[in-house]
Amino acid sequence: MLLFLVMSSDVEIRITFQPSGRTVFALPGTTILEAAARAGIVLQTPCGGGGTCGKCLVRVCSGQASRATTHHHKLQDEQISAGWRLACETTLAGAAVIEIPASSLFESSQQILTGDSGHTLAIHPAITVTSFPLPPPTQHDTLPDLERVEAALDEKLEFDTARLAAFPRQLRAANWNVHVIREGRRLIAIQPACGPASVFGVAFDLGTTTVVGTLLNLVTGQEHGVASTMNGQISFGDDVLTRILRIRDDPSRLADLQGAAVQTLNEIIAALCRQSGIPSDQLCNATLAGNSTMQQIVCGLDPSALGELPFIPAFARSLDISAANIGLKINPAARLYLFPQVGGFVGGDTVAGMLAAGFDQINKPTLLVDIGTNGEIALLHDRRILCASTAAGPAFEGARIAQGMRATAGAIEKVLIKDGDIHINIIGNVPAAGLCGTALIDAVAEMLRHGLLDATGRMLLPDELPAHVPEPLRRRLERDGDDARLVLAPADGRHAAVCLTQRDIRELQLASGAIRAGVDTLLQRAGLAATDLDAVLLAGGFGNFIRRSNAQRIGLLPPLPHERIRFIGNASSMGAKMALLSIQERACAETLRQRSEHVDISMDPGFQSAFSMAMMFPEEETGA
Amino acid sequence: MLLFLVMSSDVEIRITFQPSGRTVFALPGTTILEAAARAGIVLQTPCGGGGTCGKCLVRVCSGQASRATTHHHKLQDEQISAGWRLACETTLAGAAVIEIPASSLFESSQQILTGDSGHTLAIHPAITVTSFPLPPPTQHDTLPDLERVEAALDEKLEFDTARLAAFPRQLRAANWNVHVIREGRRLIAIQPACGPASVFGVAFDLGTTTVVGTLLNLVTGQEHGVASTMNGQISFGDDVLTRILRIRDDPSRLADLQGAAVQTLNEIIAALCRQSGIPSDQLCNATLAGNSTMQQIVCGLDPSALGELPFIPAFARSLDISAANIGLKINPAARLYLFPQVGGFVGGDTVAGMLAAGFDQINKPTLLVDIGTNGEIALLHDRRILCASTAAGPAFEGARIAQGMRATAGAIEKVLIKDGDIHINIIGNVPAAGLCGTALIDAVAEMLRHGLLDATGRMLLPDELPAHVPEPLRRRLERDGDDARLVLAPADGRHAAVCLTQRDIRELQLASGAIRAGVDTLLQRAGLAATDLDAVLLAGGFGNFIRRSNAQRIGLLPPLPHERIRFIGNASSMGAKMALLSIQERACAETLRQRSEHVDISMDPGFQSAFSMAMMFPEEETGA
Repeated sequence: MLLFLVMSSDVEIRITFQPSGRTVFALPGTTILEAAARAGIVLQTPCGGGGTCGKCLVRVCSGQASRATTHHHKLQDEQISAGWRLACETTLAGAAVIEIPASSLFESSQQILTGDSGHTLAIHPAITVTSFPLPPPTQHDTLPDLERVEAALDEKLEFDTARLAAFPRQLRAANWNVHVIREGRRLIAIQPACGPASVFGVAFDLGTTTVVGTLLNLVTGQEHGVASTMNGQISFGDDVLTRILRIRDDPSRLADLQGAAVQTLNEIIAALCRQSGIPSDQLCNATLAGNSTMQQIVCGLDPSALGELPFIPAFARSLDISAANIGLKINPAARLYLFPQVGGFVGGDTVAGMLAAGFDQINKPTLLVDIGTNGEIALLHDRRILCASTAAGPAFEGARIAQGMRATAGAIEKVLIKDGDIHINIIGNVPAAGLCGTALIDAVAEMLRHGLLDATGRMLLPDELPAHVPEPLRRRLERDGDDARLVLAPADGRHAAVCLTQRDIRELQLASGAIRAGVDTLLQRAGLAATDLDAVLLAGGFGNFIRRSNAQRIGLLPPLPHERIRFIGNASSMGAKMALLSIQERACAETLRQRSEHVDISMDPGFQSAFSMAMMFPEEETGA
Repeated sequence: MLLFLVMSSDVEIRITFQPSGRTVFALPGTTILEAAARAGIVLQTPCGGGGTCGKCLVRVCSGQASRATTHHHKLQDEQISAGWRLACETTLAGAAVIEIPASSLFESSQQILTGDSGHTLAIHPAITVTSFPLPPPTQHDTLPDLERVEAALDEKLEFDTARLAAFPRQLRAANWNVHVIREGRRLIAIQPACGPASVFGVAFDLGTTTVVGTLLNLVTGQEHGVASTMNGQISFGDDVLTRILRIRDDPSRLADLQGAAVQTLNEIIAALCRQSGIPSDQLCNATLAGNSTMQQIVCGLDPSALGELPFIPAFARSLDISAANIGLKINPAARLYLFPQVGGFVGGDTVAGMLAAGFDQINKPTLLVDIGTNGEIALLHDRRILCASTAAGPAFEGARIAQGMRATAGAIEKVLIKDGDIHINIIGNVPAAGLCGTALIDAVAEMLRHGLLDATGRMLLPDELPAHVPEPLRRRLERDGDDARLVLAPADGRHAAVCLTQRDIRELQLASGAIRAGVDTLLQRAGLAATDLDAVLLAGGFGNFIRRSNAQRIGLLPPLPHERIRFIGNASSMGAKMALLSIQERACAETLRQRSEHVDISMDPGFQSAFSMAMMFPEEETGA
């Protein structure tokens, strides 16, 4: 285990990343890799953070960083003197400023384009730009405007009337020298050809909880901004099933939920345009990846049939619809591409994730796990892709946990038992207000390690604790009716204690067990053992923050060497960007969808027993 | 001359047509053919109303009808006893009820379909209906709804999201047994297949002044109603140039004019749906024929470039646009087809007219004239079609005439000099309020015949009248400053007189001269004399009411035997119906457009002299 090598004090340290300027607080001894992930910065770790690939190179500009030891032969002496380190094996002892070069970032268009992410993408957007000067009409050349443009293009255009209406004026204003911007035969815009064409697009990851949008230049591939916000549908329920049932009970709710999603997307568009100074009508194309419920609702499709046997989505192939039709405030002629869906709850976000993970180019058994309110699992083996969705529930996002909260300021995000007591890290360096998913996993893993919890998930009562448990830790365990509870942050005069209850642990068992049982069921279907997996790719915002040893300790992840478990960041968002930049990637997504089989694990005879098994915690450490 | 054979009295008689129930008032001695035309009923007259073809068969149910003489061998004695007559040669002496069998109507889908109109049309609308029961999904067949339908169709659909949104519910409500209604790959609607599919369409003739809509069943071709109303744009100017200049001066006016046109179309749709009981969302397709200004404005295209050299329309090929996009209240997924345009002011209405006239099937020199505010002329000769538009002005529609009015109640519509005095017919059997275009032509022709007007268009002053002019007629001519005026209806205690002024005659000369000069210019271009023409086809609402002898007397129409001059009714509306019922007709319209050459006659060196010539009235009768 590479984490937590040094730990000098409980006082949190401030770590600032450049050039983004993002700041986080972390416990001393935290690796730069982990702190960066907490700041939303995903570094390249093809070796799984094992210090062997040398891709996560960063520069410590100021502050106390450990001197890399194990693998410092990867760096030259001059580099080390200049502050360069491998983020995966460098820990911080005090406040620091860290510079992250673009080449070390996992998620950048730069890399997609150069193939550094292992995926080579040639820019080939749905939008094409054709530029030419037209001969102006004369008394002897009275070709109408439309035919004049079509003759130059040698193609018959399609358009809404607003596009055509702008024709005569635009052609004359541009002095007949224009960029014609099209998607297929569909006219999107005409721009004067006095400079390069301004053609942008937006790629959305529409999550049940969080929505992310990225603004890209469709000619150069350059990224012009990222914005994210909460899905406005949350007020209608925090998981997809609640929202589906709302609509099934009252179909008029569909418009409300659709409106909430579209408003969220429009807020992101407005923010991106404001930040970049790019006018919204230059956004000529959009892509969106979401789970099947989100993709149906955003199109205004009633998801009721998804909420009942046999769980039929309205569509499986990709859709290409009018963005204006659903109310997106971008160029009114722009189209919105929605990812193909595998079936049931395995939707476009999973296909986008498979695309970003390079499933089309991988030949070895690989598992993609997106841990969210729904856990989506895709197992690639022998050209087949088995996909399943498990209703993990929102425990990892802090819901249904007595003092659970999202990973925002005040959330305990890390729990460590050391030197006979509990140590915690709180997001934002403020008093603890609750705990988020990573802390839940950490706390349970550490309790198992230190004998506070048995394999069935029962917390020992204070008087049942074995003698070797040291006194400070012993005092953390309190009686709570017939059960025990663990005090993570004691009350002080102004703040209530933050505790972990027996019921919280049951919720975690359900969530973790559902995902692990899904993984095991797919492996069984494919005739594989977990150890046959060449890689487990963890996707999604939450996946980035999971500490692998702890996830393995509680049985969420199968026992595999850490280098085979990799964080691939927001793969769904990445896939959406790839599909925005290239229609070949869209074709690839369609191929992946066709290769995928939806496994309804609730119908799988092996799932129930796998689930019962996975509800039990492993007796001992299972990781490598 | 066949008209006015009998004239017993000046008291107007009431004539009612069945089964439509339409009623008009006419002078005794009016032919049934003429009275029917006045009632908006166009009868078949392939022989030009010469009594030889026997197609205009009607039955006199009650009232005094003349016994057909000249050609009554066309009818059997039993038919004559039962009241059957040829409308073209039967005059009415008193109130009558006339039954018109569908087979005698010129303009009926029935005939288009049977080829009786000389044009065989197989129903082949843009809309297709595919009907099938689908296997309902099960746990073992979890194909999503969209893919289930696409698999049955063996085609990938296109749709707006509202169409797709309705999918899951519609499929289940129909118990998976559905009609899928499409236009190409575009999904229009899904209907339960418990009965035949309900698929209708509306064909519009969008005139500068009058708008007509016809509701058709797209499966059977059956007509379910016709409605017409004034173009709501009239408040912005009564000719196209005025409206174009309004927009050029203030581009924000475009939306007002577009809105007025669309509102007019929506009023017609509402009336058609109300009359027929057909819900508007079953209107799955629409076609529209209008002049280039109307077609551009209704699409929201700025027509300014049409108002200045070199008179460039925004488009020439047909457009197929979203009906909802411009605000039409029919099925939101329905498309609107706009006719191709030839160039300049020769627009979709002319192409629709050529289509209805069968220009694709005619091999002999044929002239199509649509007399309206703009006079459109198309000359078919030797596979070429020469087209021109002349700014006739609105004189024929009553504007710019001192006491001019449209052909509505109170308008003098017919003027006859007989027995030494003037006789008039007034629409609606009410006191005269003004005169309409036909009366203008009649009055001038009769004045020329009776020596009240010279060939330059100057009305003789009372003291200049030759001795042979009888006293009552002499008294009709009054001094009006330096000029004379003709009293058509004298004042009585309650109503002012209706007079024709010298200035009115100048307006008529301009209007008539413009059209005739256009005709002559095209003939000259083609190297033809007027007598080479096999047929002159008069189209448009006004064309139906023109009395050919009078139109020839004033020089509006060239000197040709009457049987070569035929009324073909509202050809533009007919063309729109044909394009609604068959995409082959649309292809034919496109071919006609491509065969057509736009002749900008204002640029033609021969036009000015032809115009000066045509401003002069012929010295004597020119007709046959």
